[in-house]
Amino acid sequence: MSHNLLKGKRGIIFGALDENSIAWKTAVKAHEEGAVFVLSNAPIAMRMGQINELAEKTGSQIIPADATNIEDLENLVDQAVEILGGKIDFVLHSIGMSINVRKGRHYTDQNYDFTQKGWDVSALSFHKVCQTLYKKDAMNQWGSIVALTYMAAQRVFPDYNDMADNKAYLESIARSFGYYFGKDKNVRVNTISQSPTPTTAGKGVKGFDGFIAYAEKMSPLGNASAQDCANYTVSLFSDFTRKVTMQNLYHDGGFTSTGVSNDVMEKFMKED
Amino acid sequence: MSHNLLKGKRGIIFGALDENSIAWKTAVKAHEEGAVFVLSNAPIAMRMGQINELAEKTGSQIIPADATNIEDLENLVDQAVEILGGKIDFVLHSIGMSINVRKGRHYTDQNYDFTQKGWDVSALSFHKVCQTLYKKDAMNQWGSIVALTYMAAQRVFPDYNDMADNKAYLESIARSFGYYFGKDKNVRVNTISQSPTPTTAGKGVKGFDGFIAYAEKMSPLGNASAQDCANYTVSLFSDFTRKVTMQNLYHDGGFTSTGVSNDVMEKFMKED
Amino acid sequence: MSHNLLKGKRGIIFGALDENSIAWKTAVKAHEEGAVFVLSNAPIAMRMGQINELAEKTGSQIIPADATNIEDLENLVDQAVEILGGKIDFVLHSIGMSINVRKGRHYTDQNYDFTQKGWDVSALSFHKVCQTLYKKDAMNQWGSIVALTYMAAQRVFPDYNDMADNKAYLESIARSFGYYFGKDKNVRVNTISQSPTPTTAGKGVKGFDGFIAYAEKMSPLGNASAQDCANYTVSLFSDFTRKVTMQNLYHDGGFTSTGVSNDVMEKFMKED
Amino acid sequence: MSHNLLKGKRGIIFGALDENSIAWKTAVKAHEEGAVFVLSNAPIAMRMGQINELAEKTGSQIIPADATNIEDLENLVDQAVEILGGKIDFVLHSIGMSINVRKGRHYTDQNYDFTQKGWDVSALSFHKVCQTLYKKDAMNQWGSIVALTYMAAQRVFPDYNDMADNKAYLESIARSFGYYFGKDKNVRVNTISQSPTPTTAGKGVKGFDGFIAYAEKMSPLGNASAQDCANYTVSLFSDFTRKVTMQNLYHDGGFTSTGVSNDVMEKFMKED
Repeated sequence: MSHNLLKGKRGIIFGALDENSIAWKTAVKAHEEGAVFVLSNAPIAMRMGQINELAEKTGSQIIPADATNIEDLENLVDQAVEILGGKIDFVLHSIGMSINVRKGRHYTDQNYDFTQKGWDVSALSFHKVCQTLYKKDAMNQWGSIVALTYMAAQRVFPDYNDMADNKAYLESIARSFGYYFGKDKNVRVNTISQSPTPTTAGKGVKGFDGFIAYAEKMSPLGNASAQDCANYTVSLFSDFTRKVTMQNLYHDGGFTSTGVSNDVMEKFMKED
Repeated sequence: MSHNLLKGKRGIIFGALDENSIAWKTAVKAHEEGAVFVLSNAPIAMRMGQINELAEKTGSQIIPADATNIEDLENLVDQAVEILGGKIDFVLHSIGMSINVRKGRHYTDQNYDFTQKGWDVSALSFHKVCQTLYKKDAMNQWGSIVALTYMAAQRVFPDYNDMADNKAYLESIARSFGYYFGKDKNVRVNTISQSPTPTTAGKGVKGFDGFIAYAEKMSPLGNASAQDCANYTVSLFSDFTRKVTMQNLYHDGGFTSTGVSNDVMEKFMKED
Repeated sequence: MSHNLLKGKRGIIFGALDENSIAWKTAVKAHEEGAVFVLSNAPIAMRMGQINELAEKTGSQIIPADATNIEDLENLVDQAVEILGGKIDFVLHSIGMSINVRKGRHYTDQNYDFTQKGWDVSALSFHKVCQTLYKKDAMNQWGSIVALTYMAAQRVFPDYNDMADNKAYLESIARSFGYYFGKDKNVRVNTISQSPTPTTAGKGVKGFDGFIAYAEKMSPLGNASAQDCANYTVSLFSDFTRKVTMQNLYHDGGFTSTGVSNDVMEKFMKED
Repeated sequence: MSHNLLKGKRGIIFGALDENSIAWKTAVKAHEEGAVFVLSNAPIAMRMGQINELAEKTGSQIIPADATNIEDLENLVDQAVEILGGKIDFVLHSIGMSINVRKGRHYTDQNYDFTQKGWDVSALSFHKVCQTLYKKDAMNQWGSIVALTYMAAQRVFPDYNDMADNKAYLESIARSFGYYFGKDKNVRVNTISQSPTPTTAGKGVKGFDGFIAYAEKMSPLGNASAQDCANYTVSLFSDFTRKVTMQNLYHDGGFTSTGVSNDVMEKFMKED
């Protein structure tokens, strides 16, 4: 059942790769809730993905853009405004990738060219998206910009590697740009710190399955799924959350506020 | 326009005093969004308030209860379930009062009987509400419990006095009970840390007008109003936020994440 | 080897029960570092403890005081100033006790008389200590007040029960009183959030051994011991930390900032 | 008076520019407390500074190194170990610079080449320093690594520009590397989040004087000076703080935990 939460709203959704993506599920949900939007992804990611299926399903156009490239972003924003027939109400940034992780470089043995490239893709790209929207004055009043992040920005999860530092930088951008977007445009900027999610990207991280199981046992409500995250993201795009800004919002079934769960402790009780 | 966000949901709303109350506005909004609920307030507060008007407007019944009194709470929960025809989906706790503030006792010169009474009303009452609901198994799965709080629990606002400590205790209850409610009942528990709001209660605090003006200048989106808070609370009662739990959620136009705003700095630049 | 870090400084140390106590080890260390101080404990706790041995070892006098009783505290402060020959430079508050825990009442089934008593002993006593010192103007400039706390104030550890809420209140007092003590007396007030520590009090908590083992595996430097905490506390009493105030300082070998350790994950990898 | 807190300890101190520098004052204090160390700075910064005077005063050698250059860092670490006659016990990273700030580029109008260079100098350099020390196994057990940061990583201070994001990244490195340094080497890694300090670098920021005045009025103990920071840093290098790791430690006279001070509110009360 649709609640028409996003009726009449226009958006840009980055990072829908395949049907496991949070961005994919957000697009489907936003469509159900009455929004129109364009989809964007890196040209290379699109070749691997099934984004055309999503575009068809949601009546959306796809505009390829390398989110580290200002010209691509300027073209994307211009086209989005034209295609959708007006300024933008919501943006989802769901982009992240660590070359150090991909290449198996340990956190204590980084290749700094990889580090810089990963930072550009995963963190700085969010600044570039915001700056492009800001300079073009392309956001409507009371619009909402959301980026996805992970709690590794606050606490160490060893295999998350340099993505932890990238996410810390990303969350800081949300605050910094949130200040100016708030003051000057009445637009809010937030990050959602999501449970580990078995997306195609997430699955690439070493030991991911064990970690998902651990997080499930630590979280009183269980892990938040990609679908849960899509729902939550839509609530942050809606007019019900207009004064929430510059926040990092934990969406994780309570993991963050759980020091240890009885389920996890059990494994330590048996042996001791 | 209603989005029917709370269609079919049953609730208990504590603390609607008059039309400036956040609880009042939440009740009106929840009604618009399709919820049914009972209203509750302390017998003494009800004599001062216009709660009958609200009850009529929203088709609700009023069940007086002293939220520090277990028998009152048990009766309230029993009646609510009976009147509404089923288990409860959402609860709003908007209760707080410092006798030290009322009597003009400075934070460094507390009367500890006042302190204890204020703690019982403002903080422990939330545990009592949760415990009563929990023991009676009166919450539906995926239900949502929200209590209102203020950032004084994290940072000192001199005139907020012992309410700061009470709010810190209240927020801790949300985490502690959130763990058990999550694990055992799939119910979420959160607090909303709201902008200073010119409610009838808020206005009682010394220097409140100046403080509202200060917060307005510090917050990139301006202060969140009582109406904004009602909207946000409804989103937290809805099914769009099912995996958010044990969180203290800042709803303040960005105040929390602003170290200083240009508007505030201006006052310091002129003179220096 | 002594560094004379506290040479010439006078203090009050609450809560030395036996040689496992953090307060006991802090007293020994402070003595080594040149401080003079009085020891205080609840009359009932003293009967169980070996505090006389500590008094002899450190050349200290013992002044019994129920830290929930203002008259006792006033007498203690007056005597301490007289015995030590001047105003106080440092105070350690290491007091905590939950009757709900002792009596086996679950967090969701509190006896509220127990809750209130535990809050008074564990949390409000810190306000009473501060208020007594403040009203008597008994602290020297650049003095330092420290209370011990635990991370359960931020994250749920199920067996910690209502002590979590008490510690949250205690930490809030440190901020609130720190504001006034800073502004008016140039005195700092902080809390140390210590690793789980196998003190006689700690051992009373259900499942404590398993929990110690878990924390050890989660903390990159291992758990901080009672002796480590004594050392750290002395650094916070010294003149090297004069501008640190209103902080909750994690002293836990890195537990707080560890989302999960490889050691803990191993238990989940084997099975999955 | 020396407490010999660092007697027998060997260190590397980055970033002493002139006598206003925190690094400069830390070097002087560490020398007083019995440490030996080498000084390092970027070749270009050294030409502007009076570091030779400091080297003479503290009996230290200067080893120029561009902290973004791995070869320079490897050479520095090798030489330091040789000159000092053993592994390193403490490191201070006090390096930061935003080209966007210098060139007057607003946060919403970044030149991304500048952004990347500032990130490399201010944030990634800390990873490079840690990685070099880690791979060379050049730190002694129970050693201590400290980097200086600023609260702009948590809250927006408009003129701080992209340094906010750099500091967030830096603080994340401290946690991430702190995990591995703790686990593998028993070394701690922390950041000190220091009051705004009128160093030569700090003074370059627009509106800095007004901001210093504001922070002074917000902080119950007043701003922490460069000398205060030197003292605090020495305590973190000492053996009194061995189990503190992966923390961001606020050293700011209480600013962080102050929502608003009476002094600041006064400016809003007069007009309203």
